[in-house]
Amino acid sequence: MAGNSFGELFRITTFGESHGVGLGVVIDGCPPNLSFDENNILKELARRKPGQSAITTDRKEDESIEVLSGVFEGKTTGTPLAVIVRNKDQRSQDYDALKDVYRPSHADYTYEQKYGIRDHRGSGRASARETVARVIAGAIAKQLLNSYGITITAFVSQVAHIKVTKPYTELDLSLTENNAVRCPDEATALQMIQLIEQMKAEGDSVGGTLTCLITGTPAGLGEPVFDKLHAELGKAMLSINACKGFDIGSGFEGITMKGSEHNDVFVSTNRKITTLTNHSGGVQGGISNGEDIYFRCAFKPVSTISKTQQTVNTDAAETSLNATGRHDPCVLPRAVPIVEAMAALVMIDQLLRNKVYS
Amino acid sequence: MAGNSFGELFRITTFGESHGVGLGVVIDGCPPNLSFDENNILKELARRKPGQSAITTDRKEDESIEVLSGVFEGKTTGTPLAVIVRNKDQRSQDYDALKDVYRPSHADYTYEQKYGIRDHRGSGRASARETVARVIAGAIAKQLLNSYGITITAFVSQVAHIKVTKPYTELDLSLTENNAVRCPDEATALQMIQLIEQMKAEGDSVGGTLTCLITGTPAGLGEPVFDKLHAELGKAMLSINACKGFDIGSGFEGITMKGSEHNDVFVSTNRKITTLTNHSGGVQGGISNGEDIYFRCAFKPVSTISKTQQTVNTDAAETSLNATGRHDPCVLPRAVPIVEAMAALVMIDQLLRNKVYS
Amino acid sequence: MAGNSFGELFRITTFGESHGVGLGVVIDGCPPNLSFDENNILKELARRKPGQSAITTDRKEDESIEVLSGVFEGKTTGTPLAVIVRNKDQRSQDYDALKDVYRPSHADYTYEQKYGIRDHRGSGRASARETVARVIAGAIAKQLLNSYGITITAFVSQVAHIKVTKPYTELDLSLTENNAVRCPDEATALQMIQLIEQMKAEGDSVGGTLTCLITGTPAGLGEPVFDKLHAELGKAMLSINACKGFDIGSGFEGITMKGSEHNDVFVSTNRKITTLTNHSGGVQGGISNGEDIYFRCAFKPVSTISKTQQTVNTDAAETSLNATGRHDPCVLPRAVPIVEAMAALVMIDQLLRNKVYS
Amino acid sequence: MAGNSFGELFRITTFGESHGVGLGVVIDGCPPNLSFDENNILKELARRKPGQSAITTDRKEDESIEVLSGVFEGKTTGTPLAVIVRNKDQRSQDYDALKDVYRPSHADYTYEQKYGIRDHRGSGRASARETVARVIAGAIAKQLLNSYGITITAFVSQVAHIKVTKPYTELDLSLTENNAVRCPDEATALQMIQLIEQMKAEGDSVGGTLTCLITGTPAGLGEPVFDKLHAELGKAMLSINACKGFDIGSGFEGITMKGSEHNDVFVSTNRKITTLTNHSGGVQGGISNGEDIYFRCAFKPVSTISKTQQTVNTDAAETSLNATGRHDPCVLPRAVPIVEAMAALVMIDQLLRNKVYS
Repeated sequence: MAGNSFGELFRITTFGESHGVGLGVVIDGCPPNLSFDENNILKELARRKPGQSAITTDRKEDESIEVLSGVFEGKTTGTPLAVIVRNKDQRSQDYDALKDVYRPSHADYTYEQKYGIRDHRGSGRASARETVARVIAGAIAKQLLNSYGITITAFVSQVAHIKVTKPYTELDLSLTENNAVRCPDEATALQMIQLIEQMKAEGDSVGGTLTCLITGTPAGLGEPVFDKLHAELGKAMLSINACKGFDIGSGFEGITMKGSEHNDVFVSTNRKITTLTNHSGGVQGGISNGEDIYFRCAFKPVSTISKTQQTVNTDAAETSLNATGRHDPCVLPRAVPIVEAMAALVMIDQLLRNKVYS
Repeated sequence: MAGNSFGELFRITTFGESHGVGLGVVIDGCPPNLSFDENNILKELARRKPGQSAITTDRKEDESIEVLSGVFEGKTTGTPLAVIVRNKDQRSQDYDALKDVYRPSHADYTYEQKYGIRDHRGSGRASARETVARVIAGAIAKQLLNSYGITITAFVSQVAHIKVTKPYTELDLSLTENNAVRCPDEATALQMIQLIEQMKAEGDSVGGTLTCLITGTPAGLGEPVFDKLHAELGKAMLSINACKGFDIGSGFEGITMKGSEHNDVFVSTNRKITTLTNHSGGVQGGISNGEDIYFRCAFKPVSTISKTQQTVNTDAAETSLNATGRHDPCVLPRAVPIVEAMAALVMIDQLLRNKVYS
Repeated sequence: MAGNSFGELFRITTFGESHGVGLGVVIDGCPPNLSFDENNILKELARRKPGQSAITTDRKEDESIEVLSGVFEGKTTGTPLAVIVRNKDQRSQDYDALKDVYRPSHADYTYEQKYGIRDHRGSGRASARETVARVIAGAIAKQLLNSYGITITAFVSQVAHIKVTKPYTELDLSLTENNAVRCPDEATALQMIQLIEQMKAEGDSVGGTLTCLITGTPAGLGEPVFDKLHAELGKAMLSINACKGFDIGSGFEGITMKGSEHNDVFVSTNRKITTLTNHSGGVQGGISNGEDIYFRCAFKPVSTISKTQQTVNTDAAETSLNATGRHDPCVLPRAVPIVEAMAALVMIDQLLRNKVYS
Repeated sequence: MAGNSFGELFRITTFGESHGVGLGVVIDGCPPNLSFDENNILKELARRKPGQSAITTDRKEDESIEVLSGVFEGKTTGTPLAVIVRNKDQRSQDYDALKDVYRPSHADYTYEQKYGIRDHRGSGRASARETVARVIAGAIAKQLLNSYGITITAFVSQVAHIKVTKPYTELDLSLTENNAVRCPDEATALQMIQLIEQMKAEGDSVGGTLTCLITGTPAGLGEPVFDKLHAELGKAMLSINACKGFDIGSGFEGITMKGSEHNDVFVSTNRKITTLTNHSGGVQGGISNGEDIYFRCAFKPVSTISKTQQTVNTDAAETSLNATGRHDPCVLPRAVPIVEAMAALVMIDQLLRNKVYS
């Protein structure tokens, strides 16, 4: 089965290409009687859109959405909710030169190998523009989660070697949106921005990590043994363009600890059970334990750069490539709402899945 | 929907608990006319079994399997293949003291929160013994993959701070099984073993990373945009007990590179297209490109330790805990066949899914 | 999980309401490199559209489609194919009087019970207009099936008590489209038309059966033990508005035969195995045997009538109802392309599912 | 994907062959804390077992079950519930003569065409013995449904031309189990039994219909537009061996009525909304309306007969066949618990699916 749906009970199917008519999403399983909040969606899309600051691509996409179905008199009806965004400001001709060339570390070659055909304009379906559809669905998922007291907040925690050194518990995440790089630590944010501007000037790119925090989750979400909560979160994040790594809680850093240091001791206050530490990242045995859930995502440096590169063409002949399409020197600031959206889609789906046990 | 199935076209459903009757797996979608190779399965189970060396738990499990269905005159028939392993050498009474206690960083608390009931004997369904079922299915998947020229090999690449520093391309992976820790770098293996023995003596535990290599994959496997090859691999790995992180290719380390350094340049030799470097880890745009696939998994230190720990009981009262169950001081050597099995399950499923396009 | 998707490998998701923006379908898993044939789709939609003859509703819907994604330079790309049709000629005010009333044998009451909210305009999602989306997807499925030599043809075989008495093998199905009722037996067709006209004059409605024939199916399609070929066909048909019964082969009539009469004797001609009779309807053990597949669908009389009816309103008070919306006195002629579409969706899905075994 | 699973949230996977080790079922999604009632299961199996009366096959199967997982201290734990039944009284040698022969109207030919291999012993996976697994799961589903006030009762309503003429509302269904044919109308039952005995004497077989009644269903179950309640029931029934037709409510008989006669008028008594008639069979728009659900299933005459038949062998050469395996002259009495089981599996799944909306 093809892979354009995500979730079981809050199930989204996305469609669309970067330079086609537009992008869209169908949500099957959205609970009825939810107030449909278009502004909420537009606000999230604005966080994702290109051209929002000096350190993103210059491509402009002032999104407007069209709701095709599933809403009646301002409320969801329980029937499929379909929303589309039409593409604008396309410069498909920018991509004519790429028609017969496989750009390094892009999906050009693999799409052609898989499908025997490829929409080369702006990477077609492989473009990160596909995430518009995820952000729309994620905005609705977040709204639902908020009504359960669950909040999701991501921020940029590392750009290349520049890293937020404090744990998230010592950061004021309300500052995240205050700067262009979406890092709540102001001093670090400044360094990150400088580096990204330098990359932009060089026509190069740079990667980093996002950290995502989920608060207010009740104990009990996650479906062992395969659909564990962090396994679903991991899949969701790794499905985002350029994401090459995921860890939860202490993750890759926790491996140097001893079990006696790493174990999260349970304590009880007024019969409420919590843990003293949270190396588990809020998930034990694949199920939420009620503590904060936090995880990291590693994003590789953007493959589209302005420097000349060697590559091959569709005739398997070597050639060189001068990228002319507009691009981001660092994908991380714009990935923040995408990570949040995918996290929200996992959480609402798991929340609905857990309803069956009640 | 509950989460005990994995895969779409080569779909496994596992069942069983650590101290119940046994463990089992049903494979629905196993291609017909495959020679059923019981020895192949037993060989993989032996790699997973406890008590296999001085650095694993002392619990003995000499597995024998019973095939319940799906095989006729030595061949698979295309109907569901069901295999079970009965539990032996159970000391359920070891766990009586744990009945009313939530062990730190185990799944005791979360299972009880989710289901309102919990089989406390040996962690029940949350026990790593569940992976017996995965290894059985994985052995069959590997056999199928081998017939397509695809091989899967995992090894221990880090234990606590002790790390294999060479890239996998400079290692002789045929040496992996030569030592108890399953690390192909002999000198490093020795240090790892020493550390694990020390942990065992201390009654403590330690974590690390596994690296897994998949060779011979044709270009084209993976189903964007959600069921990308590395997203499915990530989910598979994160569903393994104690696995808290996953990255592919350059992963978390690649984020400090520039795009111009990180991009894998395509080259052509006799019209065959390959890449000069492989920071992508063999997957681009979520689809295999024909290069080696390699990824890492982070395993936390085992939660079961012999030291006294503070915790709470099912009455939310604080108590202390002396673990008496037998356990592994380091889960990584025994996780090698499990990681290989899960990787094999992803790869055969994606290979079958890709058949639809041909 | 909500129920707006159908199929596993050729998977459609439909959305839209009768009096909303429009209807649409996303096909995930459509094979790449298929020539996209808009005229083929429009031709099928024209067979379904209201107002096409004197015996259908007077509501006009001259459909035009918009392809949102999945097609590049006239070919499918293997990515999701999304197509929408906008609603026109809506007279939503016709339905204002129905806002607070539950029409007998409609879905008004049940939708409100299930979702707690209901788009009352033209039955909303429960309208047979939803089948526009199925016909679009079915047209593409049929095109694919034709390339495998599989054809699908339905016709009206009974209206009320007026019945085609000859078996399908003695009919010339090329005559089906020659009359308004889509019955290939001319004399019977005339009687059916007269009856339907009479019903229209009376403001009443009438039901009947469709028979569907599938030729050219290779042996081997169908997935026991639950996704048997005829079980999937049955589900597909019963999911169509107003369909209340399904049988295959001898079906409900075969129950009066003895086994020795009913069994289809195998014969061999030039080593090709066929059956002398075909009471099985081309499916044995849930798998196609290479013979013609034929089945019947029972459609109840249309619930919308122009006569005054007693009913209750949303306050559970009794009231009377004068239907004023335009409607069909008999749904069967327009159901022909819908039945064909659903049959095509089952067959292409099973054909792709069977590829896994090759 | 292969077809051996059924249901979404109460999901069963069955395995096993008629003359292999045994049959089994894994239930994933069984709610936790249900008292596991082995006797309840054995009672249902006894209703299905061969040799239970003079009008069934002489083959004896005194079933005993083994629970492999999912139950702890007498209660379900929410983890997969696996149950097996071992095969006994196998006379596999009875089938040696059938190894190279395709029996008319059996699945021999189609299984070999599909899978390229076939377990010929007792029809292998295609045997109706597979339904043992369904009856086990159905017994648990029924127990759950009973706790919601939902009951399921099937009975034989027609054997060949002998038919119960009264509507189910005028029958006393508590009499169903009083006679060997499971028909609650005593006089009709006697005629049916006589006919079946005659068929047994002749070495022939006969078909018929079952009627199934579901009471106590709340309004709101069913998932439009594809997973409508009656569409799922239809698929479930058609997946049972020898079932070739399904209709709900007035079904195939309702097609001769006018809309004004067929529509079920809503009435209100003390603000409770019901319908005066129930031609809809309790389902409108694919969703239950709170009335009785009733449907019919058509079963063809059993293919296994003792008369000599012409057929072909695996070399496509014509040959003749003397069936010697024991068989039922009429499958209907033993199909009663199977139909109830499949109905229960649909209903519990839809009930859990509907929980998501609450």
